[in-house]
Parts: sequence; structure tokens; C-alpha cells
Amino acid sequence: MSGAVVLLSGGLDSTVTLAFAVRDRGDVVALSFRYGQKHTRELGSAAAVAAHYGVRHVVVDVDLSSFSSSLIGEDGEVPSDRPLEEIGKGIPSTYVPARNIIMLSVALGLCESVGADTIYIGANTVDYSGYPDCTGAFFRAFEAMAAAGTKTGVEGNPIKIATPIQDMSKADIVKAGKAMGAPLGLTWSCYGGGEKACGRCDSCRLRLKGFADAGYEDEIPYEAV
Amino acid sequence: MSGAVVLLSGGLDSTVTLAFAVRDRGDVVALSFRYGQKHTRELGSAAAVAAHYGVRHVVVDVDLSSFSSSLIGEDGEVPSDRPLEEIGKGIPSTYVPARNIIMLSVALGLCESVGADTIYIGANTVDYSGYPDCTGAFFRAFEAMAAAGTKTGVEGNPIKIATPIQDMSKADIVKAGKAMGAPLGLTWSCYGGGEKACGRCDSCRLRLKGFADAGYEDEIPYEAV
Repeated sequence: MSGAVVLLSGGLDSTVTLAFAVRDRGDVVALSFRYGQKHTRELGSAAAVAAHYGVRHVVVDVDLSSFSSSLIGEDGEVPSDRPLEEIGKGIPSTYVPARNIIMLSVALGLCESVGADTIYIGANTVDYSGYPDCTGAFFRAFEAMAAAGTKTGVEGNPIKIATPIQDMSKADIVKAGKAMGAPLGLTWSCYGGGEKACGRCDSCRLRLKGFADAGYEDEIPYEAV
Repeated sequence: MSGAVVLLSGGLDSTVTLAFAVRDRGDVVALSFRYGQKHTRELGSAAAVAAHYGVRHVVVDVDLSSFSSSLIGEDGEVPSDRPLEEIGKGIPSTYVPARNIIMLSVALGLCESVGADTIYIGANTVDYSGYPDCTGAFFRAFEAMAAAGTKTGVEGNPIKIATPIQDMSKADIVKAGKAMGAPLGLTWSCYGGGEKACGRCDSCRLRLKGFADAGYEDEIPYEAV
């Protein structure tokens, strides 16, 4: 087997992760989800990024409307204007129960279907927003579970998880993306559902700081704050 | 936390598993999936079984049409007329890559959303059809992954998996269902898409033998074979 499945939300982190996969691996399939998120605009970004790289883009519908999270549906307020030092603490209301686990599980099945041996995911623990399903301990446990519970695993070819940006600061992610020529202007990170990025949610604030620290201008449109 | 989420396909095994959960736990939510399976009739059975017990029934759409399996879509032949001694050997074409992993992952998120602490799944390793995602080793690895990667897990209340029929023969499952008054006549096990159960696929053959060995008549309609 060769090739990789890349979880592509359409945001900055997953786009730079895709750039690493395209650089380092032969066959790449990008995988996105329509799970009831408010920020469906990111799916358009994912399609544009996949088209930029000329890779197959699979969008899977998973209806999580029965789940509780401020990221899903009409209810719930996405936190905004939080000081950056607070963002990394605790588990925020934007936590979607088991979201990464569900996405990795579908990626696992897609790997087995297309003959890929690695899942790339743009998890990051530096500008960490408090999600338990982004840690190294979790990814190793997921690999062990996949080794025990899949055809490829029990046949001795367990599928691995690659997290190339795990230990990078947001500024380093921006720099790596720029160095590889990744189309950062096509990406979308805002948790809100607006035409322009809000500039105030946790995701926008971390992104803006990353571009500023890296010394690059963020090309996407922002609301006047 | 209390309560349980029960994976309910609408088949014999998951219905008897639900009967155990209803007997042993307070709050029960039944969870079914529309994943592109040929045998959508089982979803009607799941709804009827959930209604029989008066439990909340959540149906989640997960579109796995990009996956390879003879159980999904129009292509592929479901194996039939296999000798019973062959059914337990190897991984059959009806294996859906990572299916139980995906379903357990969604169940995990639903547990966190509704405040349940246990997932019930009707896995069985006696009349085993060769699926790697039905073994005890896999379920323990899944629990370890969930403990590492969920809010409840990192907060010290990891979600557990219960497999009450894991070590029972199909005949014992039928007997247990009958003893608890489970509505076995509402269930559907056939892998085919017909009006009546085919009686020839692996699932039908195991079911028919189970009823025969238990000394009960199977009330559902079968094609004349």
C-alpha cells in the first residue's frame, strides 16, 4: 500500500497539512465532512484547496445535529473576543463530542477502501484550543484501536496517523505553508457563518496572530472590528 | 452520569442487546445508521423495535458510498449458500471498512451529548462472521482510545462498551430474547434487499440455525428456498 488520506476542513492548519502530504506522499485523497457546522463556507475552501492541488476530494455527510456543541445548528453562541491566553485553557463550548474520533474513523475506512496507509490530520498542540482529541496520546491510542479492529490492522499493515504540524506554532505553520507555496488565501478558519471572517472567535484570533508573528499579511477578508 | 446508548441495527442480535440494556439500565437511547446499506428494511425494524420499548431512537446519516463493500450500493454480490462452517473463516466481502469503529465513534459523541456512560453493541464472537471489529481486544482498545480522546475521558469518566451477547451462541441469543419478551418478530437480519428474507445469505443462515437450535419458530417471512 501507499498513499494517504488527508482530513481537509478548508482551514489554515489542514491546508498546510495537505501541502506536507502532497510533498511527501504519492497518492493523496482529501476528505471533508458536512456535519451540520455553521461555518459551511469552509467546505467551499476545502474544495478550492483540493482543486488547487489536483487531488481527489471526498465529502462525507455525517449528520451530528443531535449532538451538543455551540458549533452546530442555530443554538449556542461561539465564544468571541477571548484573550489569547485563555483560549488554550479548558475545553470550550465549540468542542463537538468525539468529532475528531468520528472523522478519523471515516478516514480509516476510506484508507482501507482506496488502499492508503496513512491518515494526515492537522492537529496542533501549541496554539491549542483545549480539545482532548488533538493530543499525541490520543492519536497513539487511536492507532492501537485501528490495529486491533480493521482488516488491514489484523493482517499486519496497520494504518498510521501523521500529524506534521502537531508541534508547530501558528506562525511556523504560516511560514511552512508559504515556503511550500500552499494556497493560504483560499483557506477559511472562522467559526462564524458570515461572508467575511469575524476576526473575533478563537480560531480567527489564533490565525491573525499567526500571520502577524510570521510577518505575512492574511489575504482573506475580515469584518471591520 | 447514567444511561446508555444502544447501537440498534434492527437485527436479532442488536434487538436482544437492547432488551438487556432496557432491563439493566435506566435511560436508554437507541442509535441507528443510514450508511448506504442495501438492506434499508432493517431501519424500519429498528424503528419498530425502539417504539416497542418506548425509547428515543436517533437515526444518523453517514454516507459511506465511497467505501468498498458488497453490502453497499448497487455493485457487489452478497455471498449466499455458504456452508455454515465456512462463514466464520476469514473476512467476507460484506466487511464494511471501519463500520463498527465509525458507529461506535458516533455513539461515543451521542453518549457525551446525552450524558450516557455506556455504549451497548450486539457484537458476537461465537457464530462469528470474521469481522475484526467485533473482538474483545478491539473493544478494549476502543475504550482506551475514548478515555484518551474525549471530554468525559480526560475528566475521569471514560465511556465503556457493553457487549452482553458477545459469548452467546445464536441459539442462546434467541432464548435470551424470548425469556425477556423481546419482539423478535419485528427484527430483520437478511443482507439482501428483498421483501422477504432470502434465507441464503450468511446472516439468514446463522439466524435460521439459531432459531432451530433454540427450538423456536422464526416468525419473519422467508423466500421459498
